[in-house]
Amino acid sequence: MSLLVVGSVAFDSVKTAAGSRTDSLGGSALYFSASASYFTKVSLVAVVGEDFSEANRETLSARSIDISGLETAKGKTFRWEGVYDTQNLNSRETIDTQLNVFADFSPSLGEDNTSHPLLFLANIDPVLQLQVLKQMNPKPKIVALDTMDYWINDHRNNLKNTIENVDVLFMDEKEIKSFTSKSTIFAAAQAVRDMGPRIVLVKRGEYGVVMFNEGDIFSVPAFPVENVIDPTGAGDSFAGGFMGYLSRTKDFSHESLRRATVIASVMGSFAVEGFSTERVGNLAELEIEDRFRGIAGMTYFEPLGNNEELFI
Amino acid sequence: MSLLVVGSVAFDSVKTAAGSRTDSLGGSALYFSASASYFTKVSLVAVVGEDFSEANRETLSARSIDISGLETAKGKTFRWEGVYDTQNLNSRETIDTQLNVFADFSPSLGEDNTSHPLLFLANIDPVLQLQVLKQMNPKPKIVALDTMDYWINDHRNNLKNTIENVDVLFMDEKEIKSFTSKSTIFAAAQAVRDMGPRIVLVKRGEYGVVMFNEGDIFSVPAFPVENVIDPTGAGDSFAGGFMGYLSRTKDFSHESLRRATVIASVMGSFAVEGFSTERVGNLAELEIEDRFRGIAGMTYFEPLGNNEELFI
Repeated sequence: MSLLVVGSVAFDSVKTAAGSRTDSLGGSALYFSASASYFTKVSLVAVVGEDFSEANRETLSARSIDISGLETAKGKTFRWEGVYDTQNLNSRETIDTQLNVFADFSPSLGEDNTSHPLLFLANIDPVLQLQVLKQMNPKPKIVALDTMDYWINDHRNNLKNTIENVDVLFMDEKEIKSFTSKSTIFAAAQAVRDMGPRIVLVKRGEYGVVMFNEGDIFSVPAFPVENVIDPTGAGDSFAGGFMGYLSRTKDFSHESLRRATVIASVMGSFAVEGFSTERVGNLAELEIEDRFRGIAGMTYFEPLGNNEELFI
Repeated sequence: MSLLVVGSVAFDSVKTAAGSRTDSLGGSALYFSASASYFTKVSLVAVVGEDFSEANRETLSARSIDISGLETAKGKTFRWEGVYDTQNLNSRETIDTQLNVFADFSPSLGEDNTSHPLLFLANIDPVLQLQVLKQMNPKPKIVALDTMDYWINDHRNNLKNTIENVDVLFMDEKEIKSFTSKSTIFAAAQAVRDMGPRIVLVKRGEYGVVMFNEGDIFSVPAFPVENVIDPTGAGDSFAGGFMGYLSRTKDFSHESLRRATVIASVMGSFAVEGFSTERVGNLAELEIEDRFRGIAGMTYFEPLGNNEELFI
């Protein structure tokens, strides 16, 4: 079942306690594609500038990502520069943002890209996200959306308009509390579900993730990572694992959504173990399977049988 | 398998966003006993003053707690007064501490109390905790210890000396990182295990708990509580569930320790739903069982079978 992602492709310059990279491949759609590509065929729609090299394209093609929808515009590719706090990797400062060709990005899905059954609206302006969604015909089976604090704080109404039309929402704990003005993720997830999305995934960083789905609450821990190199793209890689798994299995049952959430957690854990897609883009399938089994092992306990009582 | 707890019994005056109580029953040993009493016979060793009434005693006896080791000394019972932040229930200010009879407490286990197979050293001076441990004969099968930031910061060496002699250590995330000067709970738990304890439970409040046990890592979420009334005693109730379950089942296997951790999480969730032991001391067994099943339901996903592969 094919999967379309629309979002950003960028050159990132990042500094963390572990080192730095200049102009390495980044962007929400790129991280998502790299992660999802282990599970399914991904088609990527985004814009890059004339400085996006043949080698850059090959990095994507090598992972069998369909880049026929990657538009090249006059000018330079979107650039982002950030520095992470050496003590607290959850805190980062943006040094520079150059929108470049992204400033005029108006995503237009070619004929080939309007009918994917699964759509991921990666973090871009919610007005553009809605514009993409309206081009889809027929309506996809599952539309998922990711966003960031900037849209939540300064473009709330546009974001709400778009969110009304999606099935799956990804937000981190701080974002969803701020977006809904609720003090617990349980109340916040309910408030979001009342707006439209059936499925809400609340990301809690090192504390894992909680998925809310039609009365179902599923909690999964983060896979423990000894050495966090660079958190950039963890959320997009997380979403890529989730949507990639659903696309592969074509199974949207509660059980499958739970497994997809575990896969998401696994892919997020790989993303932070390297700069850019150095780690998450170069995995063996067995490494993914091992962490999936690892999380199962970390969380399993013997439940009470149907006729068993705790107090006998 | 009988269980002994040595710690404090107090009168607490507490104010939270939900209301307040004056001189209500509290103290580490009292919360622990109330929680463990659903699962096993608990013997309590502590000291109270002449103001500890017959009605107070009956509250404990009604839960079948053995209070023959509850010493009455001349003077008043230990008193603590605290106010919780209305926005952040993890933050509290101590308004007043009156040690009273507790100032001269030198726990002496009567003949009846030296041979329990399970011992919980509730949060008191680590020098006293060690003094208790040395009176046990034979050495208990499992000795567990809880402590608090005051002992970690200002009595570190005494605490280390005591911890060397215990099997199970309970600490919250902030405490264990501070105690070991490690930045992750994984490194911190390893550092503690190198000191002596085989089993380390790191409590993460609303994010649940992680148990470390001979290479085994077990992560369990907190049971979601809609209305937190008063966090006082949550950690002691948590420990009471853990030790109470082990005492009841007499099973110290990895599997049983995992179930005990879930029970601990359940008992902690009840403790915060009322002032003093108003909620955790008045439960129906079925309520405990329901939350145990609830956590199983929140965490289960279909694991890969032995011969199953994720990528087929």
